[in-house]
Amino acid sequence: MVDFILTENIFNNENIPWNGNRFLIGNGYFGIRGTLEEYTKEQMCAVNMAGIYDRAGSAWRETVNAPNPLHTYVKVNGKKYALPENKPVFHEQQLDFENGLHSRKTVWQTENGTITVKCERFASMSRRHLIAMKYTFSADFECDAEMITGIDGDVWDINGPHFVKFNSGSEDGVNYVEGITGEKHISVTARDSVKLDFDAECSGDVCEKAVYRRIVFKAEPHKEYCIEKIAEITTSEDDFEPIGDIRDITYQELKAEHTAAWEKIWDISKITIDGDDDAMYALNYSIYHLNCIAPREMKGKSIAARGLSGQVYKGAVFWDTEMFMIDYYIHTEPEIAKTLLQYRIDTIDGARAKAKEYGLNGAYYAWESQEGGYEGCSDYNITDVFTKRPMRTYFRDKQYHVSAAIVYGLMKYIKGTGDYGILNEGAMEMVIECAEFYRSLLVKKADEPYYEIRDVVGPDEYHERVNNNSYTNRMAKFVFDTALELIEKYPSDEYDSLKSMFKDSSENIFIRKPNDGGIIEQFDGYFKLEDASVDEVRSRLIDPKEYWGGAYGVAADTQVIKQADIAAMLSMFSNDYTADIMKKNFDYYEPRTEHGSSLTACMYSLLACMTGNPDAAYPLFMKSAAEDLRPGGKQWLGLIYIGGTHPAAAGGAWIVAVKGFAGISEQNGRLVCRPCLPKKWKGMSFKLMYRNKIYDIAIQDNNVSIT
Amino acid sequence: MVDFILTENIFNNENIPWNGNRFLIGNGYFGIRGTLEEYTKEQMCAVNMAGIYDRAGSAWRETVNAPNPLHTYVKVNGKKYALPENKPVFHEQQLDFENGLHSRKTVWQTENGTITVKCERFASMSRRHLIAMKYTFSADFECDAEMITGIDGDVWDINGPHFVKFNSGSEDGVNYVEGITGEKHISVTARDSVKLDFDAECSGDVCEKAVYRRIVFKAEPHKEYCIEKIAEITTSEDDFEPIGDIRDITYQELKAEHTAAWEKIWDISKITIDGDDDAMYALNYSIYHLNCIAPREMKGKSIAARGLSGQVYKGAVFWDTEMFMIDYYIHTEPEIAKTLLQYRIDTIDGARAKAKEYGLNGAYYAWESQEGGYEGCSDYNITDVFTKRPMRTYFRDKQYHVSAAIVYGLMKYIKGTGDYGILNEGAMEMVIECAEFYRSLLVKKADEPYYEIRDVVGPDEYHERVNNNSYTNRMAKFVFDTALELIEKYPSDEYDSLKSMFKDSSENIFIRKPNDGGIIEQFDGYFKLEDASVDEVRSRLIDPKEYWGGAYGVAADTQVIKQADIAAMLSMFSNDYTADIMKKNFDYYEPRTEHGSSLTACMYSLLACMTGNPDAAYPLFMKSAAEDLRPGGKQWLGLIYIGGTHPAAAGGAWIVAVKGFAGISEQNGRLVCRPCLPKKWKGMSFKLMYRNKIYDIAIQDNNVSIT
Repeated sequence: MVDFILTENIFNNENIPWNGNRFLIGNGYFGIRGTLEEYTKEQMCAVNMAGIYDRAGSAWRETVNAPNPLHTYVKVNGKKYALPENKPVFHEQQLDFENGLHSRKTVWQTENGTITVKCERFASMSRRHLIAMKYTFSADFECDAEMITGIDGDVWDINGPHFVKFNSGSEDGVNYVEGITGEKHISVTARDSVKLDFDAECSGDVCEKAVYRRIVFKAEPHKEYCIEKIAEITTSEDDFEPIGDIRDITYQELKAEHTAAWEKIWDISKITIDGDDDAMYALNYSIYHLNCIAPREMKGKSIAARGLSGQVYKGAVFWDTEMFMIDYYIHTEPEIAKTLLQYRIDTIDGARAKAKEYGLNGAYYAWESQEGGYEGCSDYNITDVFTKRPMRTYFRDKQYHVSAAIVYGLMKYIKGTGDYGILNEGAMEMVIECAEFYRSLLVKKADEPYYEIRDVVGPDEYHERVNNNSYTNRMAKFVFDTALELIEKYPSDEYDSLKSMFKDSSENIFIRKPNDGGIIEQFDGYFKLEDASVDEVRSRLIDPKEYWGGAYGVAADTQVIKQADIAAMLSMFSNDYTADIMKKNFDYYEPRTEHGSSLTACMYSLLACMTGNPDAAYPLFMKSAAEDLRPGGKQWLGLIYIGGTHPAAAGGAWIVAVKGFAGISEQNGRLVCRPCLPKKWKGMSFKLMYRNKIYDIAIQDNNVSIT
Repeated sequence: MVDFILTENIFNNENIPWNGNRFLIGNGYFGIRGTLEEYTKEQMCAVNMAGIYDRAGSAWRETVNAPNPLHTYVKVNGKKYALPENKPVFHEQQLDFENGLHSRKTVWQTENGTITVKCERFASMSRRHLIAMKYTFSADFECDAEMITGIDGDVWDINGPHFVKFNSGSEDGVNYVEGITGEKHISVTARDSVKLDFDAECSGDVCEKAVYRRIVFKAEPHKEYCIEKIAEITTSEDDFEPIGDIRDITYQELKAEHTAAWEKIWDISKITIDGDDDAMYALNYSIYHLNCIAPREMKGKSIAARGLSGQVYKGAVFWDTEMFMIDYYIHTEPEIAKTLLQYRIDTIDGARAKAKEYGLNGAYYAWESQEGGYEGCSDYNITDVFTKRPMRTYFRDKQYHVSAAIVYGLMKYIKGTGDYGILNEGAMEMVIECAEFYRSLLVKKADEPYYEIRDVVGPDEYHERVNNNSYTNRMAKFVFDTALELIEKYPSDEYDSLKSMFKDSSENIFIRKPNDGGIIEQFDGYFKLEDASVDEVRSRLIDPKEYWGGAYGVAADTQVIKQADIAAMLSMFSNDYTADIMKKNFDYYEPRTEHGSSLTACMYSLLACMTGNPDAAYPLFMKSAAEDLRPGGKQWLGLIYIGGTHPAAAGGAWIVAVKGFAGISEQNGRLVCRPCLPKKWKGMSFKLMYRNKIYDIAIQDNNVSIT
């Protein structure tokens, strides 16, 4: 049996930001970074709120971090002991991701003996507003001890501060800190209630941005002194109410509820792999993260590119959701998938406004979508390392493929659930307007018969402003075809008149064919670019943090690409291509890919599976599954910090496992399983929801059972 | 009377590059930089050959500098005296630009007294292969003197060395150094012959790349010792033969011929201004330069952007010639104008190849045209000052307006000379193919009626890759209209079938109208750019040499433009616009123009004249006329040296004087003169050739006589 426990048992100052991500706990309403209880904003603590945004001044808009109700530390004989200041003699941090429990144990040597701090905490999966913490102190000598625990409103922000006003106080045993955001006056409040199992002298301290409890006691040697805190986070934007009074709930009760909720989640989502514990561990760790950030109980909310691990990428929703994450939810908890799509439907006004801004029609979804579909991406999304000036990037203007990704995600949902009803809830309109958007991008040369899409940024962002990115053109055709298919299926006066336009678009858009060698050129002129290796291009960097793309980046004029582009297209439209073409393109593009994105390895991996090469797929699968477990991921884009969790890689790993290795596909409304396991895998078993039924899939030595 | 003499009478080391330009002499076959006789490549000496190009390795192709036959210095009592090493007590450098004579006088203090070197030289305007020099030494004390004079083949190059082989020698009194270029094995030879008027001991020294004569004599006090050198430059590419044997020709004879030739040139080209000597001086200095570089006697040669002042801008021909220089030649020596156009006709294969390279039709002329129409412009035309990396620029790919400029120049020539015959000599084909080129640029949005030209660099190079640059679209329409007009005039089976295509193009290309405020937007979205002042934008420079344009330059996202763009269009198509619109656009765009090009001031100046505002035009006219007289012009583009003479500014000054202030235009085949003189000008007089007749124009106090 594989233990779903992640452990770090040394203390390394440099790992603080990374541990904040990989030890994350969350329940969809918020994420709590895997920082220690004594940490403050210096160590990037965050209770990161889903879908609550604010702009401070003219800085980037981003999600808001709630006042932190976990802030706790100890004093012994008047001296504070805390990391990272005091070097410990023992330190262990753990995430039990089977049960969604974070814990730590730290031992310090003092002048008189050793002291030990232990803490366990969780983000309640049963009562989504709640956080519970059990904090324990002991010493091997008698001492005057103090526990200071409170709510810290002076939170970490990348582009803050977001709270322009605070209300702090204490009432009937409940302390609270309320922060009010500057832009939209949203209230975000943390409350706490603390229980002690020992005698102590308790006092309180209410500051502007914080409220603290001071618990002073005489500690006997080798006795454990434990406090239990139940904290509650609420906002003025909540879709659902807190359950119960935090003063009435015990840690033990809440933990029992919480682990039961996780057990239920794992029942449908766990994937067992026979013969490869590492893969099973990493894959289920990925699934854990997908569950921590799923917007359960929430209306029309989606998932940010860095999940709930902080404000990186502005807490915004990218195409990642519909391309890489939604598949998992469709086949485990489809109501979550529907919530994600409802977010897009609800925010179509933002997409309409963006199309209009660029003189285009229909719905052009935001590259970095915030509440209401507000575009969070600025024209200057990277800072030049040499001049420290903002660089004009074209992510916002020209990544036209985002609208198509949403339609693609919708169709995966409809095919996976059979829920055509969603079309009556705004999705039909969304498809039509996305098709109108792509129609308005089409241009035709004076004497040529076909339509082009020019001046584009494809998935491979290192090459900006290219013409006829094969991926984008193919996706546009997909949207035209989808609109046509749905108009045919549901004829209406409103849309029938659009059929000829979409038909013309689909038939005449330029779809690039493979060249004589079977390779599909990524965009007009790509093959003419310098064919330098990734290593060669990397060696040209002057500053390790410099951006590879943009107008003058080291990759810009070479064939080195950031991430799967042609490979994504091939895996998404695998019926259009032979296995031979897919293999040739894998062999051509994979070595030319920097894999400078967490979205890329899974795409190549899936493509390798489709060409019957699971062993080529395997290392890319592991890269994707272990994205948040591996140290030293890409932390910088120019001068901008981009660390955090990678739910798209997690979702991508799930896709490879289920659709690649297990070979699950849908044919004529039925699940088909054509496994293609890596050599060392003897078997796989998992559950899958498909069109309202749960199937048990078991693969053993290439025997398949679906029940 | 205004003396046409340029004098510098101090010695300033820092002025060496600039003096090389402003003291230039030339005869169209070569230019000789205004460097001193003792200078070598360190001081940027050059006998810059017109139209002879070479590429060394993978560096930029550029014109070739001939072995320098002027290299001469003195030794007194064994010690060398030369600038810049030895500080002089007196120094004067002069250019008599009435007679095309360069001279210098330098006095040094030695241990025993003073010594004086004088030298006069010229590039023969009568025998275009010849250079003559008279070099004089004297001392105010008795001394052992030595004159060393020879041919220096170790020449200055920007992207050299170009000579991969040398043949040096001496035969029958003639020394020679022949250099052979690496790329095309072109031979460039300098020969010299020297005469003495005193007794001396003469010896010779033949090295690999140089041949020297050593003239040793005992100098008496206060006596002048003079040597006369006649040198000859030839190449294996010559269109015409040298006249005479250099051993037979005397300095005096050659000088008489030379000054007679200049007198003849000035007879048709001098412009007299009553009331403004500075303007008259600067304007005729500009005309001097236009005459030094005119390709007289040469077949199908044009003029480089920096004339014959060196290899800057690769010695290549730009749109400058047809836009700014050709007018002067059309109206003084139209056979030169025809030679310039013949160059474009002869090089149409290069333009065809370039169009094909970009998947376009017809003739796309080179941005930096070398022999055969070879494109000298690289994809990386600027070096980034911060990273020292080459920057991807789009001058080569997307300055589509160059072909139209050539058609525009042709039509100026035809209208100014009446020489429709040139259409039978290849010009008709050129017009048609330029129109086919623009046709192939047109794109139409799926549901819009008009054609656009997208992804363009207009005259204002600071904004790359814009859509619907108003200037470019208008020029394309002009080319379509010209092609239609000529096909109508000369019906032929070959071209009649193209009429409907050109008609469709002309009628449906998007021509931007003025907005409500009367301003014509430079390109799609220009008005949305930050409206920062030129000074504000300049203040954002981190490095004074950094490039303002490109993707991230300080001007790129602002309304600050490099040079006349809308203003150029308005002055070229003045019949399309009211004076009010022209004035409003002048007032809008002029303050937003950095004037970072020598092509801009004259355009604005001409536009100001057209709106009846000669006093607004005047400072811009003077800027243009004195471009090569003013210190501190723009010497750098990124890290690339761009100094040299500015014949486009010279030609532009002539255009403003004649077409602006004198108000000369052509109406129904007749010259019309509607003067609009600056306040201080009482009158102007000049000759003008128009349709094979020479007219004397005299303007005095707004009375005009044309005879």
